[in-house]
Amino acid sequence: MTFRFKGKPPSRRQFLAGAAASTAGAISAGAARGEGDPLITEPQYWAQGFGDPVDEAPYGLPIEFESDVIRRNVDWLTADTISSVNFTPIHALDGTITPQGCAFERHHSGAIELSKPDYRLMINGLVDTPLVFSYNDLERFPRENHVYFCECAANSGMEWAGAQLNGAQFTHGMIHNMEYTGVPLKTLLQEAGLDAAGDLSDKWVYVEGADASSNGRSIPMEKALEDCLVAFKANGEALRKEHGYPVRLVVPGWEGNMWVKWLRRVKVTDGPVESREETSKYTDTMADGTSRKWTWVMDAKSVVTSPSPQSPITHGKGPLVISGLAWSGRGAITRVDVTKDGGKTWQTARLAKPGEKRALTRFYLDTEWDGEEMLLQSRAMDDTGYVQPTKDQLREVRGLNSVYHNNGIQTWLINSDGKAENVEVS
Amino acid sequence: MTFRFKGKPPSRRQFLAGAAASTAGAISAGAARGEGDPLITEPQYWAQGFGDPVDEAPYGLPIEFESDVIRRNVDWLTADTISSVNFTPIHALDGTITPQGCAFERHHSGAIELSKPDYRLMINGLVDTPLVFSYNDLERFPRENHVYFCECAANSGMEWAGAQLNGAQFTHGMIHNMEYTGVPLKTLLQEAGLDAAGDLSDKWVYVEGADASSNGRSIPMEKALEDCLVAFKANGEALRKEHGYPVRLVVPGWEGNMWVKWLRRVKVTDGPVESREETSKYTDTMADGTSRKWTWVMDAKSVVTSPSPQSPITHGKGPLVISGLAWSGRGAITRVDVTKDGGKTWQTARLAKPGEKRALTRFYLDTEWDGEEMLLQSRAMDDTGYVQPTKDQLREVRGLNSVYHNNGIQTWLINSDGKAENVEVS
Repeated sequence: MTFRFKGKPPSRRQFLAGAAASTAGAISAGAARGEGDPLITEPQYWAQGFGDPVDEAPYGLPIEFESDVIRRNVDWLTADTISSVNFTPIHALDGTITPQGCAFERHHSGAIELSKPDYRLMINGLVDTPLVFSYNDLERFPRENHVYFCECAANSGMEWAGAQLNGAQFTHGMIHNMEYTGVPLKTLLQEAGLDAAGDLSDKWVYVEGADASSNGRSIPMEKALEDCLVAFKANGEALRKEHGYPVRLVVPGWEGNMWVKWLRRVKVTDGPVESREETSKYTDTMADGTSRKWTWVMDAKSVVTSPSPQSPITHGKGPLVISGLAWSGRGAITRVDVTKDGGKTWQTARLAKPGEKRALTRFYLDTEWDGEEMLLQSRAMDDTGYVQPTKDQLREVRGLNSVYHNNGIQTWLINSDGKAENVEVS
Repeated sequence: MTFRFKGKPPSRRQFLAGAAASTAGAISAGAARGEGDPLITEPQYWAQGFGDPVDEAPYGLPIEFESDVIRRNVDWLTADTISSVNFTPIHALDGTITPQGCAFERHHSGAIELSKPDYRLMINGLVDTPLVFSYNDLERFPRENHVYFCECAANSGMEWAGAQLNGAQFTHGMIHNMEYTGVPLKTLLQEAGLDAAGDLSDKWVYVEGADASSNGRSIPMEKALEDCLVAFKANGEALRKEHGYPVRLVVPGWEGNMWVKWLRRVKVTDGPVESREETSKYTDTMADGTSRKWTWVMDAKSVVTSPSPQSPITHGKGPLVISGLAWSGRGAITRVDVTKDGGKTWQTARLAKPGEKRALTRFYLDTEWDGEEMLLQSRAMDDTGYVQPTKDQLREVRGLNSVYHNNGIQTWLINSDGKAENVEVS
């Protein structure tokens, strides 16, 4: 960083001392007037010379002060870096859009580098005319834009047996929310022709990726024709390599494992394939040891992102914005309640915007903090009438051996020093 | 890039040859069936070994194949890198969200590096209690999220005297569209108290930045109280350094110069300051040589982003998606028309979503190309009834000496080889 100083800048330590002094008062009584705060009363070095040029390349990156706002993984969770999960830093984000550069991604055999010229998508099976599309072909079909969340079925999966990971990024960060651009899968299936499939009500598609894992999944035809997208852009730009460049499948509201990256083939079948990814994986082990399959939809869920273990309260008593995210794979979020006392009393949070179907909704509770301990929870409701359950309610049905589909209510204990930790309340 | 090959990969040249062969046919007759296309019929090296690990750091970047999708500047346009403009690569984007890393930005004395602890915002002038807020203070007020476009008043300014720059990025790329999170300016003004200001209808605020340029601008109180945001996040994450980290002003629908970065002070005044940025700059020179001031609103405008000079047609005749962006600083886009013959006949484009107030709207015309020359234009309409004018209609009022507020209809000549160029039609 090159500043062109007219004079010698004061030391950073000096600034920080000034900052601490002026932020001591609570804003409820009005912010400090700035007397004796050189940061506002005196000319500062950054106003006395030029700042930095902004170069075309490389592609713009966050400022160094935000270098901790990145994806993180959990070492012990996956076998190695070739099959790993990178969590969104939701504790540090606001609004609803997730930038691609820090958006959750999961891969099963590494992130492959597949160029547009090398890309092919086959539609085959019970179709009138099997087709192979190049990337350029896909760009010639009418396309749509939708903001959707993508959540891993295993999000919060490490919390089945009790509170474990200390941070919203780790308990709830297997999720992202992006504006996807693509061609409806329905359009491509119709281009291949579905007359050969006969009655569509019992047909399926089997989708697989071009990577070594192939990550094949079966999807009922009804969903394939409803809202699945063959997507090539996210948040306006090309998919990043780790998000499936150049083309991934978007399966709105359904578990992220089905959003096949590097999408290579869509086969129309007369039944599910029962692939590894939908038998030995991505099924739910129940209390009695049996497994439940075909649990695709991500039910309504929410989490307070701030305050939270990675985002403690640092400003003391007084006005506090409690903020979080809510979503439902079945529809739109209609209401989120927040409790500060572990569920004894609830207040209805403010939704930043009306909930959108199968997209993240940001909620806020603008409140006061008295400096005492809090047991913070949020509880989401969607437009089907579904209410997010407690963890104990979930365990009554599901037992303790599950990995996937844990949408139970999360509790953060906020200590009197403002620090937070992951706990459970009964 | 490290692939773990099981065998020797075929040469890239071999792949490209295969790709060219299979994309020769138009998709209207169905895509190739894939016979003889090893890219889909034969196992490829990227499926025979592991892909790359995805590291936590650095923050995720686009894949190397997209290395040309970056901001660009125009060498001769500004004096030096300390006062420059970086244009969004709108020709290569889709949807509506602009990623921060390639989002248009303009700075007048470089991009300063201002930490959150060093940050202060003063509210003073005709207020009951002058206040100084730290960054932490701002986070304690109720906040909002809105997607808004930010367009430089000089966007398309180089085209007043005739078609000049050959690409949508350069003619229309001084714009971005992001989900901003911040505190309403109204909230902070009310915290300081506006009783001292008396009748608000003739009051103004003067806003300035912490950089050496200060970039001071006067804003009527009515707008300050309507929808201005003191923003600290864009697309969910902290503002990038070049976008004003840690805090910038958002002035929805109004010229980008007023969206002061590194926001330092908001002063309530009994009239405009008539600063350099609103007298010698950011006024409109009319045909008779006089200057018109206080032209803040960005009127309805649109541009076809693809095909365009930087995004030619490469697939030959047949189905073609014509795509573009439309926006209005006065409200929401209600309709966009597209012509292929320089304005003789028009077709109504499909809006990807209903237009949102003061935000970019994506439009598509799903059409066929006969391989003949086209004179492509788009024409936007907003919910005030305003219709985007032709360049000639603008010039009748404004003459040829203007720089700012050129929202005239753009024409791309598409040649029979699919290449495009910037032209004008009368």
